[in-house]
Amino acid sequence: MARVSQQHLDARRRQILDGATRCFTRNGFHATSMHDVLREVDLSAGAVYRYFSGKEELIGAIVNEVLDGIRDAFEEAALQGPPEPPDVLIGQVMGRVLAGEFVPGAAGPSGISRLIVQVWGETLRNESLATAMRTGYDKMHGAWIKVVEAYQAAGLMRADIPPEHVARTMIAVAQGFAAQQALFGEVPVVVVQNGLRGLMSMGEQKAG
Amino acid sequence: MARVSQQHLDARRRQILDGATRCFTRNGFHATSMHDVLREVDLSAGAVYRYFSGKEELIGAIVNEVLDGIRDAFEEAALQGPPEPPDVLIGQVMGRVLAGEFVPGAAGPSGISRLIVQVWGETLRNESLATAMRTGYDKMHGAWIKVVEAYQAAGLMRADIPPEHVARTMIAVAQGFAAQQALFGEVPVVVVQNGLRGLMSMGEQKAG
Repeated sequence: MARVSQQHLDARRRQILDGATRCFTRNGFHATSMHDVLREVDLSAGAVYRYFSGKEELIGAIVNEVLDGIRDAFEEAALQGPPEPPDVLIGQVMGRVLAGEFVPGAAGPSGISRLIVQVWGETLRNESLATAMRTGYDKMHGAWIKVVEAYQAAGLMRADIPPEHVARTMIAVAQGFAAQQALFGEVPVVVVQNGLRGLMSMGEQKAG
Repeated sequence: MARVSQQHLDARRRQILDGATRCFTRNGFHATSMHDVLREVDLSAGAVYRYFSGKEELIGAIVNEVLDGIRDAFEEAALQGPPEPPDVLIGQVMGRVLAGEFVPGAAGPSGISRLIVQVWGETLRNESLATAMRTGYDKMHGAWIKVVEAYQAAGLMRADIPPEHVARTMIAVAQGFAAQQALFGEVPVVVVQNGLRGLMSMGEQKAG
């Protein structure tokens, strides 16, 4: 019976997180109250506060889930040996992110992107969120560094460039693409994949 | 005398914009009141409201100024013929943006980046700002498309990739790099330039 009970607890937690995500995606963090969340998930305050102490904790839980998901996607992509080229990897990861695999409550790529941009804004004034973001980013950065080192070891990329600089730039591509989806509407992931292919075709010297 | 008077008006307008930018950079749009702005610029309400009807109009003016500046920097970079490669162009434009050339009131690269991320968040819930952003983005995109077409015409990039996809991706690099500065602290522009050099060295086929 303990297993059923844990399943129930998990499902309830999931229900609250998804409802909160829907609220945040729709109205932003600031304009969303715990009352809105309660109404959205159709649960009593007692039921919700059993899982989350308040809005801050809900935001933190959602952000951690998203960051973990993205990092896992990057790490899985990085574990393929030899790793696929950047356009393929970015396509895989961004495809999973924008398909909502890590943010079940946010409707569609535009909802997910809007949530990401809101999280960035919130991070600027929320110390615990900033710490969570930095940890998540460091892990993602670490996964990408391994990929870049593999490119260099295989002679696919010039070896005199610090891998962490390429890793940062790849993450910047993903972040900027997410910002564009939020600000200017959805475009398919193939757009940024093509853009990378164009850049990669410019063919600088591989040797330093 | 009319010229002196116009100079005075311009200087006063500048003073208000710079003070408001300092407030916004420090505390965000939501936590900044017009009262905070008045105190920061040390002017009377009458003097300030002569130039700006309120916070919304101040935000709009600052955003337009930033967007115009970035677009001009891209267009100037694009007018060089033949255009420099992406790592050089991005270095030039991001260098000027982060040096505060277009946002005199925001202190340092981190302040400017924080303001940019705040503007994105605000854009999600402010229709007139969204329109201004879209117009600014379209112009920037147009400038980058010309650059990419020049690369392709010169045989520097494979010609079967839609130029608008590469343009979008280059802008994503710049946006993502700005987001990283805001979220994780300042790094020199050479980091993203190196990252682009690494990607460009991966040397896909130029012919389609």
